[in-house]
Amino acid sequence: MEMKGRFSIAAKRMSRSVIRELLKLTNRPGLISFAGGLPYPGSFPVEGIRDICARVLSESPHVALQYSATEGLPELRDLLVGFLSRHGLAVGREELIVTSASQQSLDLVGKIFLDRGDTVITENPSYLGALSAFRSYGVRFLPVEMDEEGLRTDLLARELKECKSSAGSGEEYFQNMPKFLYTIPDFQNPTGVTLSLARRRELLEVAEEYDLLIVEDVPYKWLRFAGEDLPMLSALERESGDGGRRVIGLYTFSKILSPGLRLGWVTADPAVIDKFVQAKQAVDLCTSSLAQSIAAEFLKSGELEGAIRRNRQAYARKAKAMLEALESEMPRPPGLCWTVPQGGMFLWLILPEPLDADRLFMEALEANVAYVVGSAFYPNGGGHSTMRLNFSFPSEEEIREGIRRLAALIRRETGK
Amino acid sequence: MEMKGRFSIAAKRMSRSVIRELLKLTNRPGLISFAGGLPYPGSFPVEGIRDICARVLSESPHVALQYSATEGLPELRDLLVGFLSRHGLAVGREELIVTSASQQSLDLVGKIFLDRGDTVITENPSYLGALSAFRSYGVRFLPVEMDEEGLRTDLLARELKECKSSAGSGEEYFQNMPKFLYTIPDFQNPTGVTLSLARRRELLEVAEEYDLLIVEDVPYKWLRFAGEDLPMLSALERESGDGGRRVIGLYTFSKILSPGLRLGWVTADPAVIDKFVQAKQAVDLCTSSLAQSIAAEFLKSGELEGAIRRNRQAYARKAKAMLEALESEMPRPPGLCWTVPQGGMFLWLILPEPLDADRLFMEALEANVAYVVGSAFYPNGGGHSTMRLNFSFPSEEEIREGIRRLAALIRRETGK
Repeated sequence: MEMKGRFSIAAKRMSRSVIRELLKLTNRPGLISFAGGLPYPGSFPVEGIRDICARVLSESPHVALQYSATEGLPELRDLLVGFLSRHGLAVGREELIVTSASQQSLDLVGKIFLDRGDTVITENPSYLGALSAFRSYGVRFLPVEMDEEGLRTDLLARELKECKSSAGSGEEYFQNMPKFLYTIPDFQNPTGVTLSLARRRELLEVAEEYDLLIVEDVPYKWLRFAGEDLPMLSALERESGDGGRRVIGLYTFSKILSPGLRLGWVTADPAVIDKFVQAKQAVDLCTSSLAQSIAAEFLKSGELEGAIRRNRQAYARKAKAMLEALESEMPRPPGLCWTVPQGGMFLWLILPEPLDADRLFMEALEANVAYVVGSAFYPNGGGHSTMRLNFSFPSEEEIREGIRRLAALIRRETGK
Repeated sequence: MEMKGRFSIAAKRMSRSVIRELLKLTNRPGLISFAGGLPYPGSFPVEGIRDICARVLSESPHVALQYSATEGLPELRDLLVGFLSRHGLAVGREELIVTSASQQSLDLVGKIFLDRGDTVITENPSYLGALSAFRSYGVRFLPVEMDEEGLRTDLLARELKECKSSAGSGEEYFQNMPKFLYTIPDFQNPTGVTLSLARRRELLEVAEEYDLLIVEDVPYKWLRFAGEDLPMLSALERESGDGGRRVIGLYTFSKILSPGLRLGWVTADPAVIDKFVQAKQAVDLCTSSLAQSIAAEFLKSGELEGAIRRNRQAYARKAKAMLEALESEMPRPPGLCWTVPQGGMFLWLILPEPLDADRLFMEALEANVAYVVGSAFYPNGGGHSTMRLNFSFPSEEEIREGIRRLAALIRRETGK
C-alpha cells in the first residue's frame, strides 16, 4: 500500500538516525563501547526508588496513578523551585513547568518558537538530540566555533551583527534574526568543554545587545567532579542585565536520578511557560504522575543529594581511568589531542589530519571498540577527524582496555 | 520583555483550552461534576501496581530505570501483540510501537501526516484532545454527522466523492484529499455512541474506494458493560478488503490500568510505524521504562484482565445510576433526549431548542452541578444545545444528586 506520498513535509525529511543504527552494531558481546550516552546504572538509587515507590503507592495512590495538571504536580513544582534556589537560581512556581524529560523540552522549544526557514544558533559541534528536535521544524543552523573556554562569544557577536544588518525592526526583527542560541554550558555534549565564567557574562551581554533568546541545557551540572561550580546563565541574568528573562533553562532527572522515569523541567519567563503549557496539553496532556510523585519524595527526603554524590564519585573515577589510559597509551603525533572534562559523561578526541574518524569507525569495530563519530554532531558538516568518547557507562577495566585497543588502532594508522 | 513576536505561527495560534479553564471552576467543594474525563480511581489496582513495582525494581532495575528503545521494550511489545491477538487482532511486532499514552499518539499522527492547510475528517462532535492535537498542525476539519449507529457512512461517501472530483491523481491525490478519518468506534467521546458492525464494514469499503487512511482510537473498548463486543476496524480490514493496512490503531493503558503511567501503543502498517519511531526519537526519545516494565508484568501475570473486569463492573453500576436518575428525574419536553452507552465513560444529553447549554453552564455551577458544554466538541462550531455527562468519576450517590440538580434546572428553564 502506498504510504510515502501521504506523509507530511516534516515526515518526508525524517530519517532513522545514522548514529542510532551504528549504535546497534555496538551491542556485540566482547565489544567495548564508548559510543552510548547512558548513565552508569550502578549509580541508580534502586533501593531508594523501590522504597519511595511503595510509600507513594501507599500514601497517595490516587495522585500517583491519576492524570495530573499539565504544568506538573504543584508539590513537585514547589520542591523544584526550592532545589534550584539551593543551587543559586531563584525562580517562582509560575516560571517552571514539569516535562517528560529534556528531549520533550527540546521539542516543545521547537514547537513554540520555530517555523520552517528559521535560524537556530548552536555550538559547533552540538548535541545530536537537540539538532534532530529542531531540524524536524525545518530550520537552518548557524553553528559557532568553540575553544577550551566554550562558545567563542566574539564570533557569535560578529555573526549577530551580520544578521542584524538585514533584519529590519519590530516584529520583523524577531522573525528574521536567529530565533535563539542553544547552549550546553557545563561539560558540553559532545566535547566535554565548560563555558567559562567570563564567557557566560559575555554571552549574556551579546544576547542583550541583540535581544537574543538563549536556551540553556543543563543536564550535567550536577555531575561535576573537578573545578568550581559555575552559575547558570539563568542565575547570572538575574544579577545584571535588563531584567528580562531571555534564558530558557532545560533540566532533567535523567542524569541525577534515572532516565527511566522520563522526567525533567523547564524554567523561563512566565509568558513562555504559558506557551509551554498550551503546547504540552496537545502533545501528552501531562507527565507521568507516578514519576513525578517519586521525584517529589526524593527531593523531600533529601535522598536526591545522596544520589547526586554517588554519581559524582563514580564519574570522577571513570573519567580519571579514561584520562590516565589516554596519557599512558595514546600516541601523540602533532594534532592529536583530547579535552579534559571537569564533569559530565564525555570527552572529545581530535585526530591529526588526514585521519578520518568516520572511516576508522568500522576498523574500530573490528578491533572490538566503538565510539561516536564526531561528524554526527556538526549541524552543517565537518568534524571528520573527531570522536566522542563516553566514560559514564563502561567499567574502569573496560575503559582501560578500550583505550588500549583504540590507541593501538591509531598507532597503526599514524605509524607512531 | 517582548515575547509574543518571537513565537512560531503554531504557537501564536495556541490558546489555553477554554474547557480546561472551565474545569477549574468545577473543583469547588459541594459541586458535583460530570465535567471531567477521569477514570474511577477506586478501580486502580493499587496493590497490584505496588507489588509489581517492587518486583520490577528487584528483578530488573537496570531495565526499568535506564533508557529503552524508542520502539518500546521488546518484551512489552511482544506481550501487547499477544493481548491484541486474544482480542481479535493479529499484528506482528513490527506493526506496533509503544507511546507515552494516546495524546502522544495523536500528536505523532499529526506530525507524520499533517501539513498546514490539510483536511482531517472527524465525527461531529469528536474528542477535544484529538481536535487540539491536529489543530496545532494548522489543519481544517471536515466533520461528518453521526446517528445512533455512529458515523453516517453515506454522508462520508458523499463528502469524499466531492473531494475526489478536484483531487487530481498520483501523489497530488494524497496531498489534496483528506489526510485521514479520525474515529472512536466504541462508546465515542463525547457522545457515548458505538459504531455498528454494519457501519464498520461500510466505513472500510468507503475508505478503500477513496484510498483513505483511518485513525481508529480505541481507548474504551475494554470498558464495555452491555451488548456484544465488536471487532476493531483494524481486525475487520484484515479479513477482507485489498490487504492494505489503512487503519492506524491507537490504544492506551489510561482507562484499563492507570493514566498516571502515561502509556499507550499504536498499531499500523510497518512503513507508518517506522515513521512513528523516527518522529518519537525527536519528541521524547523513549517512553518511561518503569511504566513499560509495570505494564509488562501486569500483562504477563494476567492481573490486567482482573483490573479490566473490576472497571467494567464499576462503570456498569455508575452508568445504570445515571440512566435511572435521568429516567426518573429529567423532564421530557419534545426534543430532550440522551444516549444510552454500552460502555465507556460518557453519555450525551441533547436539550430542546432554543435551550442553550453554553448559557446554562454558569447557572448549573450556581446549582452546584457541572458538565462540559457539547459545543466544545464541534470542530467547526454548533452543538449549543448539547452537553457531555461523565459517569466514571463521581460516586453513584453523587450521580443521583447531580442529575436531580440538573433536572431541576432544566425543568425551570423549560417550564415542565
